[in-house]
Amino acid sequence: MSAKERAAQLLCKWNNILVLSHASPDGDTLGSASGLIRALRNMGKQADFACADQPGQKYAYLFKGIENQGFIPEHVVSVDVADKHLLGEIKTRYPVINLSIDHHAKGQGFAEESWVDPTAAATALMVFELLLEMSAKIDEDTASCLYTGLSTDTGCFRYASADSRCYRAAAELMDMGAKAAAINRHMFETKTKASLEVEKQVFATMEFLHGDRIALAVMPKQLLTSTGADESELEGIPAMVRGIEGVLIGVTLKEKNNGDWKASVRAGNLVDASKICQGLGGGGHRGAAGCSLGTDFKKAREAIVQACCLYLDNMGDRP
Amino acid sequence: MSAKERAAQLLCKWNNILVLSHASPDGDTLGSASGLIRALRNMGKQADFACADQPGQKYAYLFKGIENQGFIPEHVVSVDVADKHLLGEIKTRYPVINLSIDHHAKGQGFAEESWVDPTAAATALMVFELLLEMSAKIDEDTASCLYTGLSTDTGCFRYASADSRCYRAAAELMDMGAKAAAINRHMFETKTKASLEVEKQVFATMEFLHGDRIALAVMPKQLLTSTGADESELEGIPAMVRGIEGVLIGVTLKEKNNGDWKASVRAGNLVDASKICQGLGGGGHRGAAGCSLGTDFKKAREAIVQACCLYLDNMGDRP
Repeated sequence: MSAKERAAQLLCKWNNILVLSHASPDGDTLGSASGLIRALRNMGKQADFACADQPGQKYAYLFKGIENQGFIPEHVVSVDVADKHLLGEIKTRYPVINLSIDHHAKGQGFAEESWVDPTAAATALMVFELLLEMSAKIDEDTASCLYTGLSTDTGCFRYASADSRCYRAAAELMDMGAKAAAINRHMFETKTKASLEVEKQVFATMEFLHGDRIALAVMPKQLLTSTGADESELEGIPAMVRGIEGVLIGVTLKEKNNGDWKASVRAGNLVDASKICQGLGGGGHRGAAGCSLGTDFKKAREAIVQACCLYLDNMGDRP
Repeated sequence: MSAKERAAQLLCKWNNILVLSHASPDGDTLGSASGLIRALRNMGKQADFACADQPGQKYAYLFKGIENQGFIPEHVVSVDVADKHLLGEIKTRYPVINLSIDHHAKGQGFAEESWVDPTAAATALMVFELLLEMSAKIDEDTASCLYTGLSTDTGCFRYASADSRCYRAAAELMDMGAKAAAINRHMFETKTKASLEVEKQVFATMEFLHGDRIALAVMPKQLLTSTGADESELEGIPAMVRGIEGVLIGVTLKEKNNGDWKASVRAGNLVDASKICQGLGGGGHRGAAGCSLGTDFKKAREAIVQACCLYLDNMGDRP
């Protein structure tokens, strides 16, 4: 029996299921959780949701009409959670995770049972395939939740992870009633005035270094207060910094609430961002990594710029 | 016989085919033309390309390896051309268009034979279906050309026009070797420093009017010279202006080379942009329309602002 079939079997059998999203929840963990909860309820089961952080306002539609029922959970399922500590402060409340469904390469081991598929573009894609395996009813709202996960985790079907399996699942979800155009407009096209103001202020700080191969932007704490933006409106900035033509490394220096400066490093194919950040006590993936650099802005800036320059120098002229 | 079957029959029969794109060519007309030419050549036919304007540098990969052969055309096929005058200055050179393949609602009547499908998200989708009908070989480069048309004409699968038929075709093209991730990165993620500078300068001009339901931005002629941007780098601005949260009408006032100010009006679901522009001697679609407003900036601004305010006033409080 495949891990997917096993997961389907368990969920068909279980009742009173609590579904967990990771802390600082994004569209995939929330779309996966809300979609799964809707489908489980459509099967006559009780299903509730828990997350360490309140989902951003832009995700409110995912949970419309599926407010928590407040039963005592018999089974706990995590979606899009690669490691137990990513559950945040609720991790101690649920010492046993009965089933983990996740698409991250490292999402194995912390749950009693796991279905991990790193080839899936999003956990929502896995939940969709799981529901088909369970012969669960996928209504319009469930389809919209799962589509949201697919779309947000692939930058609206842009990233390399968005393969034909992902496009076909999106097509099927649309045929099941997912409001694709409205979701994408909501997630990707509408910019608040606050986020426009954020971009304007961040643009003004931007520097190009090392033959324009490094772009550096700064987000001081007061950026939020001076623009009225919330944290979720800063999410797109590091990718934007990296996305400038010719830039190999995009660095965003962000001042945290405690005064620490954190560097978010984004890199294209040629550079391993995690290597740069590891040298400064941080970590992450090849394409996106981060590190904390203390409270002195000048020192923080110098440290990350030096690390990036050193990386590029060692890389030599390729290409 | 359907119009598609008829088009397939003709193309199977014909040789020495010239494929025309519309003037100011975009990704759909160019992806459709280059994809069709590649497939026709794979069938052993001669096929060349003509367009009134040189395609932008970012589209160069579409035509790599299929330079014109320079035969005397026996048949002329237009793709994504809704009306003969949209061919621009080459329209007099080709008085007879033998076949028109187009997805615009008004694309009928100027060619000897036409296949028009306004339900298709892109003309490239039609060309893909046509090639399947012809049992033509779709190689990797052909698939990439057609995918480019699909992706660019739907804002990377974001717009309402991107239906499940469009997603499924994209999936099939990816399975045939279309370099989807690289194309989308190239088309949508990479921003030149010039276009970043354009956004910065345009942001600085932005005004919000009529209870923030109108956003107005200005693009003077010197924007190109002061930023080093080319025309294609201004393409996204009107959609950006319209995309601000709460804005019902986005107006971009652009100074043309002859000194005339042209208004590009973008509207959401609630507003008909063409109605606003028609009152000022212009026209267009519900979502996107335009009009020329003369060389006096102050008068031009006043005219378009007044027209937008009047429209909103007449709309009343809905909703």
